[in-house]
Amino acid sequence: MSAILDRLVPEVREALEAGQLDSLREMLAEQHPADIADALERLEPEQQHTVFQLLDPEQQPEVLDLLGGRATRDLLIRLPVEVVGDLLDQLPMDDAAEILSEDVPELQDQLLAAMEADDAAEVQRLLQYPPHSAGLLMTEKYVHVRPHMTAAETLQYLRQVDDEVETVSDLYVLDEQKRLIGVLSLRDLLRQSPQTRLEEFMVTEVITVSPEDDQEIAARMVAHYNFLAIPVVDENQVMLGIITVDDIIDVLIEENTEDMLRFGAVESVAIDQPYFTIPLFRVLRSRFGWLLLLMLADTLTGTVLRLFDTQLAAVVQLSFYVPLLIGTGGNTGAQTVSTIIRGLAVRDIRFGDIFRVIRRELLSGLLLGLSLSVVAAVRAYTWDGDIEIALVVGLAIIAICTWANVIGSVIPLLAHRMGFDAAVVSAPMISTLVDATGLFIYLSIAGAILANRFA
Amino acid sequence: MSAILDRLVPEVREALEAGQLDSLREMLAEQHPADIADALERLEPEQQHTVFQLLDPEQQPEVLDLLGGRATRDLLIRLPVEVVGDLLDQLPMDDAAEILSEDVPELQDQLLAAMEADDAAEVQRLLQYPPHSAGLLMTEKYVHVRPHMTAAETLQYLRQVDDEVETVSDLYVLDEQKRLIGVLSLRDLLRQSPQTRLEEFMVTEVITVSPEDDQEIAARMVAHYNFLAIPVVDENQVMLGIITVDDIIDVLIEENTEDMLRFGAVESVAIDQPYFTIPLFRVLRSRFGWLLLLMLADTLTGTVLRLFDTQLAAVVQLSFYVPLLIGTGGNTGAQTVSTIIRGLAVRDIRFGDIFRVIRRELLSGLLLGLSLSVVAAVRAYTWDGDIEIALVVGLAIIAICTWANVIGSVIPLLAHRMGFDAAVVSAPMISTLVDATGLFIYLSIAGAILANRFA
Repeated sequence: MSAILDRLVPEVREALEAGQLDSLREMLAEQHPADIADALERLEPEQQHTVFQLLDPEQQPEVLDLLGGRATRDLLIRLPVEVVGDLLDQLPMDDAAEILSEDVPELQDQLLAAMEADDAAEVQRLLQYPPHSAGLLMTEKYVHVRPHMTAAETLQYLRQVDDEVETVSDLYVLDEQKRLIGVLSLRDLLRQSPQTRLEEFMVTEVITVSPEDDQEIAARMVAHYNFLAIPVVDENQVMLGIITVDDIIDVLIEENTEDMLRFGAVESVAIDQPYFTIPLFRVLRSRFGWLLLLMLADTLTGTVLRLFDTQLAAVVQLSFYVPLLIGTGGNTGAQTVSTIIRGLAVRDIRFGDIFRVIRRELLSGLLLGLSLSVVAAVRAYTWDGDIEIALVVGLAIIAICTWANVIGSVIPLLAHRMGFDAAVVSAPMISTLVDATGLFIYLSIAGAILANRFA
Repeated sequence: MSAILDRLVPEVREALEAGQLDSLREMLAEQHPADIADALERLEPEQQHTVFQLLDPEQQPEVLDLLGGRATRDLLIRLPVEVVGDLLDQLPMDDAAEILSEDVPELQDQLLAAMEADDAAEVQRLLQYPPHSAGLLMTEKYVHVRPHMTAAETLQYLRQVDDEVETVSDLYVLDEQKRLIGVLSLRDLLRQSPQTRLEEFMVTEVITVSPEDDQEIAARMVAHYNFLAIPVVDENQVMLGIITVDDIIDVLIEENTEDMLRFGAVESVAIDQPYFTIPLFRVLRSRFGWLLLLMLADTLTGTVLRLFDTQLAAVVQLSFYVPLLIGTGGNTGAQTVSTIIRGLAVRDIRFGDIFRVIRRELLSGLLLGLSLSVVAAVRAYTWDGDIEIALVVGLAIIAICTWANVIGSVIPLLAHRMGFDAAVVSAPMISTLVDATGLFIYLSIAGAILANRFA
């Protein structure tokens, strides 16, 4: 894939610069739409515009559909509204809705007016679902059949199903009120004798989602049951559409980056838009709350230092090790948190394991602290030539690493127990928790070992 | 899904405690294997063992296949070797290979001997592929057809395809040397007239992966091309197997947790095993390197503090703000890194945007710093009653937040540019980078404003 791109992107650039548009057009006609989309994303907006217009009209909608990141926006704002409306008509409507709500929200009304009436109506139905809901991923173009149809009739019917229908792997059996009463796979269908009616072999216990469910729920269900598509029904079991596995894969990839944001202590309010298009104010709002909270928690470090001000004034070198010690504590804690969050996510760890986890992390914190303390103590001794200070620093590293490991394992387990996603526990949160307590540990050790100097 | 579990798990527990095994057996027979697997994961190992033996022999292999986390191991080490061998024979061989290599590695030889010879041979072929390679996800049970078959013959053939074959959505056309020469979808097949030969309409440009490719490459290709399965071929285009989308989904979920580990600065050497089964020594080795490197980098903070030792001795309160200031810098930087890594991952940001990114992050760092500085300066004033120190702290917060935002955006962009995954840049790495530089900024500001006090 990247090998194709490494060849394709320079070829396109060269052809553009040399003005060889006809040969570029021919070359593009032979490429896979997914590769064209990826290549477009690496071009400048003006080049994207030129290349897109060279594409075969058959390729254009598929390329648009596969375009990721901000390229969609860059391209669409440069095309005439009627052209875009026509392109959107040819996309799966869930993807059209996503483009209208996320990539070019300011053009939404204009573009809906430029689309065909029934497509625009479908998009508007989709746009009523809340952000991040399963309904937004839904397509109304699935294969629905009736219970009394025979296998042979169904196969005959499948031959003429519209190209726009997204998948034919599963067929949905609806009653007269459009309620979902059964499902069957194409594979099962092929094995039946021609005269068997669908109601005789369809599966009647159908697993569904509601359009208001969070997309993550739909994604987890598809992952859990190994589905290729999941039907969406309303509260009366009336079939609204299906969500296909390719949309589920996109949700999983997005979820990945959301967890990354949370682990960095960014609220994920501001995530549904491309980086450059999110208003700065929304970014600031989503970051300020956490920073303020963490800063206020960190004022505790000042209180701890004040508590030991005599000692710090008497032995000024003690303060030189403060950033090193709390930094190491924060780093150790961040490592543990990420290990525990992963263990909870892949279900290697349960809350009931809390004491086994603590025992294990206590031991590994102790061993890490021991190894690091040797380096730290030697460094301290070469710096200050003071064996007692070196001892204080070494012991503090051992104690702080052990403590950070415990904090870093207990907090995500507690969050998980209280029903939160453990990933709400961020690296900055653990660092901040370790800061004040780590200082307290350090200065207490100093107080005990250097007691004779604080007369 | 979780509603099902919330009901199922207590029901199973109650039945177990009341010893009502017969009614439990009946109840389980009606459940979806995926739900049984999820319920099992929440039981204690002894209970898992009891419940598994109550299952219909038809359900057992599927439940085993869907079991996640450490439950697989807990269950299998409690079952007789012959029983496990028999169960593994009924799994897709890629899943059997995964269990043998990851969950019960110490039983691998015994279990292979207990399996049927051809299954054991397939597993052994799979186990030769390197860890994390596409080959390990592969199944040899796919539908292969010959180019001269007609559509009618192919449909007839599909009716008798073995149940073990994982998917029939795509059919692979092989020549006499088993080389992959074309692919067609079942959907295309249905639309052909009965006498059309496959070679007349099969797609001959087939996108494939090599068994040695990393699993992430296969996952990205399936996500990219919206495939339901991807064929695996050797260097002579000989077909080795297929990877189905459900395995790809598992890879994406795993990748998510890997990124989490890297962001917490844990080498992902130790990730292919359940939390409790990784030898402690491997965990320590994977964590120690980063911690040591970061600690050594953090010794720079001591050098900076020594550089300003006269000032720190003259105004002892200055040292009380050190942890707060570098903590806030580290947190701000961690937020920015996670935002940028996400932007790169979803392709909203390119390296070419570096100056736009810096401008944006500079501005948002400045604004965040301004807001936080008000709170910090007020807190400092109420603490020390010293307006100049409050000013120093306020200005330092502004400068450090701005600086941390720039560092946090530039470093991942550079890593990306140099061909690394931007996710190698961890929250601890940025915090550590901000520590020494942030201190330098703070004490320089103090030096300028409080110059008259350092006579």
